[in-house]
Amino acid sequence: MLTLDDPLLLRRLDDRGVLTLTLNRPQAFNALSEAMLAALQAELDAIARDEQVRVVVLAAEGRAFCAGHDLKEMRAEPSLPYYQQLFARCAKVMLSIQALPVPVIARVQGIATAAGCQLVAQCDLAVAADSARFAVSGVNLGLFCATPSVALGRNVGRKQAFEMLVTGDFISADEAREQGLVNRVAPIEALDAEVERLVARIVAKPRVALAMGKDQFYRQLEMGLAAAYQLAGQSMACNMMDEAALEGVQAFIDKRPPRW
Amino acid sequence: MLTLDDPLLLRRLDDRGVLTLTLNRPQAFNALSEAMLAALQAELDAIARDEQVRVVVLAAEGRAFCAGHDLKEMRAEPSLPYYQQLFARCAKVMLSIQALPVPVIARVQGIATAAGCQLVAQCDLAVAADSARFAVSGVNLGLFCATPSVALGRNVGRKQAFEMLVTGDFISADEAREQGLVNRVAPIEALDAEVERLVARIVAKPRVALAMGKDQFYRQLEMGLAAAYQLAGQSMACNMMDEAALEGVQAFIDKRPPRW
Amino acid sequence: MLTLDDPLLLRRLDDRGVLTLTLNRPQAFNALSEAMLAALQAELDAIARDEQVRVVVLAAEGRAFCAGHDLKEMRAEPSLPYYQQLFARCAKVMLSIQALPVPVIARVQGIATAAGCQLVAQCDLAVAADSARFAVSGVNLGLFCATPSVALGRNVGRKQAFEMLVTGDFISADEAREQGLVNRVAPIEALDAEVERLVARIVAKPRVALAMGKDQFYRQLEMGLAAAYQLAGQSMACNMMDEAALEGVQAFIDKRPPRW
Repeated sequence: MLTLDDPLLLRRLDDRGVLTLTLNRPQAFNALSEAMLAALQAELDAIARDEQVRVVVLAAEGRAFCAGHDLKEMRAEPSLPYYQQLFARCAKVMLSIQALPVPVIARVQGIATAAGCQLVAQCDLAVAADSARFAVSGVNLGLFCATPSVALGRNVGRKQAFEMLVTGDFISADEAREQGLVNRVAPIEALDAEVERLVARIVAKPRVALAMGKDQFYRQLEMGLAAAYQLAGQSMACNMMDEAALEGVQAFIDKRPPRW
Repeated sequence: MLTLDDPLLLRRLDDRGVLTLTLNRPQAFNALSEAMLAALQAELDAIARDEQVRVVVLAAEGRAFCAGHDLKEMRAEPSLPYYQQLFARCAKVMLSIQALPVPVIARVQGIATAAGCQLVAQCDLAVAADSARFAVSGVNLGLFCATPSVALGRNVGRKQAFEMLVTGDFISADEAREQGLVNRVAPIEALDAEVERLVARIVAKPRVALAMGKDQFYRQLEMGLAAAYQLAGQSMACNMMDEAALEGVQAFIDKRPPRW
Repeated sequence: MLTLDDPLLLRRLDDRGVLTLTLNRPQAFNALSEAMLAALQAELDAIARDEQVRVVVLAAEGRAFCAGHDLKEMRAEPSLPYYQQLFARCAKVMLSIQALPVPVIARVQGIATAAGCQLVAQCDLAVAADSARFAVSGVNLGLFCATPSVALGRNVGRKQAFEMLVTGDFISADEAREQGLVNRVAPIEALDAEVERLVARIVAKPRVALAMGKDQFYRQLEMGLAAAYQLAGQSMACNMMDEAALEGVQAFIDKRPPRW
């Protein structure tokens, strides 16, 4: 296991290219301090350039997955420019997750609140322990979870998102699944197996197909239908010209496994 | 209890800032006549300026919540300019609900059809009696519920919305909840308690946080992801500079209730 | 029963205006070969001009509804311009379905994969046998289902769509209904009755109301709220000036059936 000097964020890369990033500040509920955001950004930047990585699992140590921003740190510097910069840095982390050429799976073992809930929403996929709970609870302190609402509002229905945002109340893992915030729910002892199920399906695919596919998926969602089809058609034509796809399709025709 | 001279719309403001507007034309199924639309618009304009109001509950008298436009009135003036003006006026009411700085909860005790269903969809939150039913039934008369489809299509899935729009059929309160049109369903005798549960959560929050949060929530949903994060980050930074948020966060750090 | 010379696609128009198009290449799982795409495009173009047609049912022969593109054909011409043209032609078929002035119902009796799943997603409504299954499985061959993701991503939640796209796994008909990809699920022996239920509701409505309503429904979904209401209001005002709507509303007021 490889670990960074920085103990805030553990990094483990297995020989299949499965990179597990583990938020490792359990005593502070893995709050997204400036240092944690910087560590995440550095890792995401490195992953973006590392062709060995095939999939990222975002995990966490302790009882919380992530409780959002570090409130002590935030409160210590009450200035508008500071807060603007802080939320911009956090948004950059979120946008970097979506921009990665590999899928990112949140492995949610405990509560995920405010920017922690946002992190789950922003990942491409999420698997949660049945004991995990989710809230955008900033409003309880007078701070509406505006940036979390960006990711949450793109995962769940409007009225359901609005209720969470104005009440600050928790929803259960099962409710999160029903509403679209997570893909799968499992008992805590089966959580890793459930994550592995997705991981195994992903690493069996050619990296380039997932990279092209993920990129166009989020882009086309922001377009009108005709433009979306134009982008997707262009992406798919390029994908088809790739060696892996040509071999994969040929193997299918020949009724044999592809030689990748 | 305060009531307007106009009996079409009852108005009650309690000492917590909970403003209940009650559609009061039960004999006409609370149809949105020109007079009713004007009364709603006047109230919404007043609420937008009244800092005492903390949350709006939109309720109705009688067996129907609202059966949509007043068809007799509509049929009496068959001219394109008149219909253009009528739908523009109705749309203004709908846009005013979304533009209000406070959350608006629909309290749905009976059927909600056509523009009545739109009214439910346009509110930020909705609680329905388990006997309530929902339809966009204009198509049964040859008049496709186009303006209702705007609000409905932003609450429920495309295929589900399309089915309701072309069949004109009713869905039950439970189906409405599953599909995202309402937040909560309760037996009629527990309807007020269920509404009160949301109201109590909302009035416990600082007004300014909800106002800033609601405003950015709907704006960012219409944007691409990067622009959405930029808007939300700016909104959240401003919110954090507000006295209520600074005190709320400090109170959280000090493990005491906020002094709001 | 009328059938085309072309046996790839069967065409039947009943005296109510119900046009059933049946993909008729069961031995090839109704793959969307160039010939099949051309036959579909020709039919859709004809339907767009034929005022007798009131609703389209898209059905299929054999055990599969549609398995997507014809992979042998695709693999035989590995050139970027060819693939660009092919996906553009397929996208045109999809856009033509949405542009039709009548509702299109997918009748899904078997598996629907890749562009076959896209076809289901792109139809306005879908009814599936409980044994039907759905996948965007190109990724299993190294070819990410990019163009299918356009239609799928506008039917189901982001995380659910992403999971299907990167795993290539099947979902059941019940899962498809829960996620928004199909409207109704029935045992295979009740599939036609379930389709007929929708068909009967649709042909009972004036054609022009459905045409105007469908057109504005998809347009307004791509707009911001204020612009959406403007478009929908204009559409609804024009619809109201139509003879069928004026008569339908008058009949409602007179408590009699409309004379259409």
